[in-house]
Amino acid sequence: MSLDRPGEFETIAKLFRPLAAGDPAARNLADDAAVIPVKPGHDLVVTKDALVSGVHFLPDDGFDMVARKALRVNLSDLAAKGAEPFGYFLAVHWTPNCDWEKREAFARGLAEDQKLFGVHLLGGDTVMTNGPFSVCITALGWVPHGKSPSRAGARPGDAIVVSGSIGDGWLGLQAAKGTLGVLEFARLEALQKHYRLPEPRLDLARAVRDHAAASVDISDGLVADLGHIADSSGVGIELHLDRIPLSGAAKAWLGQRADDLSARLDLATGGDDYEIACAVRTENMAPFIKFAARLGLPATVIGRVTAGKGVRVLFEGMEVPVPQAGWTHD
Amino acid sequence: MSLDRPGEFETIAKLFRPLAAGDPAARNLADDAAVIPVKPGHDLVVTKDALVSGVHFLPDDGFDMVARKALRVNLSDLAAKGAEPFGYFLAVHWTPNCDWEKREAFARGLAEDQKLFGVHLLGGDTVMTNGPFSVCITALGWVPHGKSPSRAGARPGDAIVVSGSIGDGWLGLQAAKGTLGVLEFARLEALQKHYRLPEPRLDLARAVRDHAAASVDISDGLVADLGHIADSSGVGIELHLDRIPLSGAAKAWLGQRADDLSARLDLATGGDDYEIACAVRTENMAPFIKFAARLGLPATVIGRVTAGKGVRVLFEGMEVPVPQAGWTHD
Repeated sequence: MSLDRPGEFETIAKLFRPLAAGDPAARNLADDAAVIPVKPGHDLVVTKDALVSGVHFLPDDGFDMVARKALRVNLSDLAAKGAEPFGYFLAVHWTPNCDWEKREAFARGLAEDQKLFGVHLLGGDTVMTNGPFSVCITALGWVPHGKSPSRAGARPGDAIVVSGSIGDGWLGLQAAKGTLGVLEFARLEALQKHYRLPEPRLDLARAVRDHAAASVDISDGLVADLGHIADSSGVGIELHLDRIPLSGAAKAWLGQRADDLSARLDLATGGDDYEIACAVRTENMAPFIKFAARLGLPATVIGRVTAGKGVRVLFEGMEVPVPQAGWTHD
Repeated sequence: MSLDRPGEFETIAKLFRPLAAGDPAARNLADDAAVIPVKPGHDLVVTKDALVSGVHFLPDDGFDMVARKALRVNLSDLAAKGAEPFGYFLAVHWTPNCDWEKREAFARGLAEDQKLFGVHLLGGDTVMTNGPFSVCITALGWVPHGKSPSRAGARPGDAIVVSGSIGDGWLGLQAAKGTLGVLEFARLEALQKHYRLPEPRLDLARAVRDHAAASVDISDGLVADLGHIADSSGVGIELHLDRIPLSGAAKAWLGQRADDLSARLDLATGGDDYEIACAVRTENMAPFIKFAARLGLPATVIGRVTAGKGVRVLFEGMEVPVPQAGWTHD
C-alpha cells in the first residue's frame, strides 16, 4: 500500500490495516505488493470497477454505504462468473473534505461487508484529488478451472433466467433523488436501500458455474446486459417484458403509472440491479431453479435464446420498440 | 470492461481491445471479469497504484508517457517482489478535455510498453471526472511459490544493495519544471526522461527472489524506502551517503552545488527512482552482484543492516541528520 501525504499513514495504519489482518497475503499492507498462494485446480477471476461521486452514487450518500456499494458491484461481477471472492485491492481518491469521520465510516462499511462476504483487503493506494471523490476496487476470486461461464456460450433453445427482481435499483435512485412520486415510506426505504446497497448474488455462483451456458451481471440494465450475451454469443434473445420479476414496491409503483408499457421498459432498462442473467440449456433448467429455490431466491425464466441477433422485447405477445437499451452515466 | 458513456464504447473497442488481444484470459474485454488460469507452483503477486495529474505526473506530460509511467511504477513493485508480470487492469478517470487524440496517445503508450515488458491488458473500467485526469493500474505477476522477499527479512550483517543510480527521478522532475539550473541539454533530457519514463528493474527480479532477504522498490525516496525495510524487519540500517551510485548527470549537477551534503541528501530523499533496494546476506552477495553485472546493471553496496532501528545516514564516516525522510505529494 502506498500513500500520498502524511495523513495517509494514519489512515492506512488505523483504518485500513485492520481490514487486511485476516489474510497473510496482504503482508499487513506493509509491502510493495500482495503475494497470494494460488488455489490448485482453479482459475483466478479478476474484475475492476471504479465508482465516482455524482455518477455511480449520490454525493450525499454515507461513506460507509459508498464503500460497501463499491465492493458489492465488484463482487457482483465475480458472482456472475461463478467465482468465490477472497480479496480485493482498493484505490481511493480522497477529496479535501474527506475528514477522519468520513474515512472511519468508509472503513467501517468495508469491515461490515468483509465479514458478510468473506473477503479481505489485500492492498492498494490512496491519493488526493480536487475532483469528485471516487473509489476503485479490484476484486479477486477463485473458480474451478474451466468452469467460469463467459457471455459467449448461449445457444438457440436456451432459456433466459434472471435472479431476484428487476428495476428496484433504478427506482431506488429515483426515490433517493425524490423524483419517484408517492409510495409508502417503507417501500421508498427498501428501494433506496437497493440502490445504495445492492446484493451481489454470490450464493448463486455455484449454480452459475455448474448450470449456466452464459451469464452476465445486470448493471447497465437488463435489456443492455442481455444484449451483451446476444452479441458475444452471436444469437438473438427474446425477452418477455411481462415475465420480468418485480418486487412489491416495483409493482406498487407500476400500478400508479398511466403508461404501463413505458414504465415496464423503464424498469427493464434502468440498471443498477446487480442480479444475474443466464442462458441455461433445457436439461439444466431444473437443477438451476432448484438450487435457487433452496436459497429462497427467485430465479425466473424471462425469455429464450433464438437464432438471429440482438434483443427483441415482447409485451403481451407483441414486439415493442425499446427507446434506450441501457443506462449510460453521462 | 465496463463503461460510462457512449463514447467509451468506441474507446474500448478501438483503443483498448487490441491491447487485450494477446491473452485469452482478458476475454476480449467483453465480459464481467477476466478469468486467468493459475500457474502451478507459483504465487500470484498483485500491486495497485493510482497516478493523479499534477501530483504523480505533470499536467503537460504526453498521454503516451503518462500511460507508460502508470504501468511502469506498478511493474517496478512487481520487480521488487521478484515477480514476472503477465497482465494488468486499468481504470482511467478521463476529463472532458481527453479527446480522441489524447486517448489514442494513451493507448499507443500502453501498446509500446506491453511489447517491452510482455504484459497484456486484462480488463478494467473507464469513468469521467471533472477533477484531474488519473490512472489506476492493478498489475499481476507470478513468482515461484514462497520465493517473494518481503520487507521484513533483513538481519544485522546483511549488505544493503541498490540497483542503477539514485536521484535522477527527482532531478528530472526539477528539470521538467525548469527549476534545476544550468546543465547540458542532453543531461537535462536524460533526467526528464528518467522522471517521465522510469525503468522497472524486471531483469533483476530473478536475482531478487533468489538472493535478496528483503527488498523494496524506491518510489518515496531511498532513505524512506530503506526505512520501510528497517521498520518491517525490526533492524537498523546504516546508509553511506557517499557510496550512493549517481549518474553522470547527477554528478554534474552535484558538482555545481555549494552545499554538497545537502544536495546529496536531496538525491537520497527525492523519490521517483524506481530502482530496487535489497538486504542481501553476505553469502549471497557474490551471486547477486554477478547477476546484475551480466545485465550490465550496476548493483552497489551502499550500507549495511545493524541492530537497532531506523536509518542512520553517514557521510564521510560521520552521522548526519536527515531533514525529510521521503517525498510526500502534498
